[in-house]
Amino acid sequence: MILHSYWRSTTSYRVRAALNLKGVAYSQVAVDLVAGDQCRADYAALNPGLGVPTLVLDDGTALTQSMAILDYLDAAYPDPPLLPQDPINRARVRAAAHSIALDIHPLNNLRVINQLKSRFNATPEDTTAWMQHWITEGFAALEAMLPDNTTFAFTDQPGLADLCIVAQTYNARRWGMPLTSFPNITRIEAACLATPEIAAARPEAQPDAP
Amino acid sequence: MILHSYWRSTTSYRVRAALNLKGVAYSQVAVDLVAGDQCRADYAALNPGLGVPTLVLDDGTALTQSMAILDYLDAAYPDPPLLPQDPINRARVRAAAHSIALDIHPLNNLRVINQLKSRFNATPEDTTAWMQHWITEGFAALEAMLPDNTTFAFTDQPGLADLCIVAQTYNARRWGMPLTSFPNITRIEAACLATPEIAAARPEAQPDAP
Repeated sequence: MILHSYWRSTTSYRVRAALNLKGVAYSQVAVDLVAGDQCRADYAALNPGLGVPTLVLDDGTALTQSMAILDYLDAAYPDPPLLPQDPINRARVRAAAHSIALDIHPLNNLRVINQLKSRFNATPEDTTAWMQHWITEGFAALEAMLPDNTTFAFTDQPGLADLCIVAQTYNARRWGMPLTSFPNITRIEAACLATPEIAAARPEAQPDAP
Repeated sequence: MILHSYWRSTTSYRVRAALNLKGVAYSQVAVDLVAGDQCRADYAALNPGLGVPTLVLDDGTALTQSMAILDYLDAAYPDPPLLPQDPINRARVRAAAHSIALDIHPLNNLRVINQLKSRFNATPEDTTAWMQHWITEGFAALEAMLPDNTTFAFTDQPGLADLCIVAQTYNARRWGMPLTSFPNITRIEAACLATPEIAAARPEAQPDAP
């Protein structure tokens, strides 16, 4: 299968890590978001949302939206699982993941920054403050949702919440966020980065990284 | 079970509709987002993300994040299903739902509007333009993802994508959006509103509506 992705995109990072954990072979096609590759007609035909990642299966089916792709991978390649079986435990893991995937990431996207610049003449300082505001709010909520006695977010194996966490902490560090108030989140980040399959998914390790 | 919700919240609307479709009995506790009820200590203990809805099960378990709650309900009360069984079809439905739940709603939240006002002195006209921008972009992507020969989004029964669509079209109309460019979306909206269980979940039909 082919993953259309961008090295620095946190949603691409999540999906790369899941593919690696599940041992699924894939090749990458770089979509340079800064250059606007996502708006090219051939890419828009694959992904009308003009975002990354897009996962193209061997039969040509194109799957979009990283959280939907992660669910697909967990159903199609169940070992190791990204989610527990019990419905209540699944809901807890999903809620933690969504505190990043819905409450932080959509607000800190490149397209949002571009709108803040064009509509409100946002300065680089405004942009940084905006980024840090949503990460701080979302991480405060997430920190309170996490147990403090597990290696990863809810168990001793990495799962859906962990993939969202490791990608978002990368982004938080990029924006100069101090993370000392979030001991559960940074503990989980360290456990993820010590996992070879996740470390191989880091932005800096991708072929399109500068 | 008890649903802590707000009449006008589109995430609350989604969950009310799912509970009604599945025939699950629940009572509602109003959380007045405009008055700041979501920041009260007793509510924050239930929902550290300070959002709505929160679903409290009969054993006291509090579930947060509407999309995680919908997945829980679909697992715990499988009939009628909100998602198809086949992993690729599930991913398609989820991607359509996420084009609203991740690409529109998080940008159009009350908390985002408050930040635009306090950081950028956004005027009411700025706010309306911001709302309409993200709805237009998200709906354009979604429209292209939808088949044009089904009653609901992907089948002839309402599912996860439909619940996101009917709630988001309510919000779009509130912000004065013309929706004539989105024939698939408005066809699905009409089918949803003709379904008594969904109509009963409309904001105007809630006990805390003015």
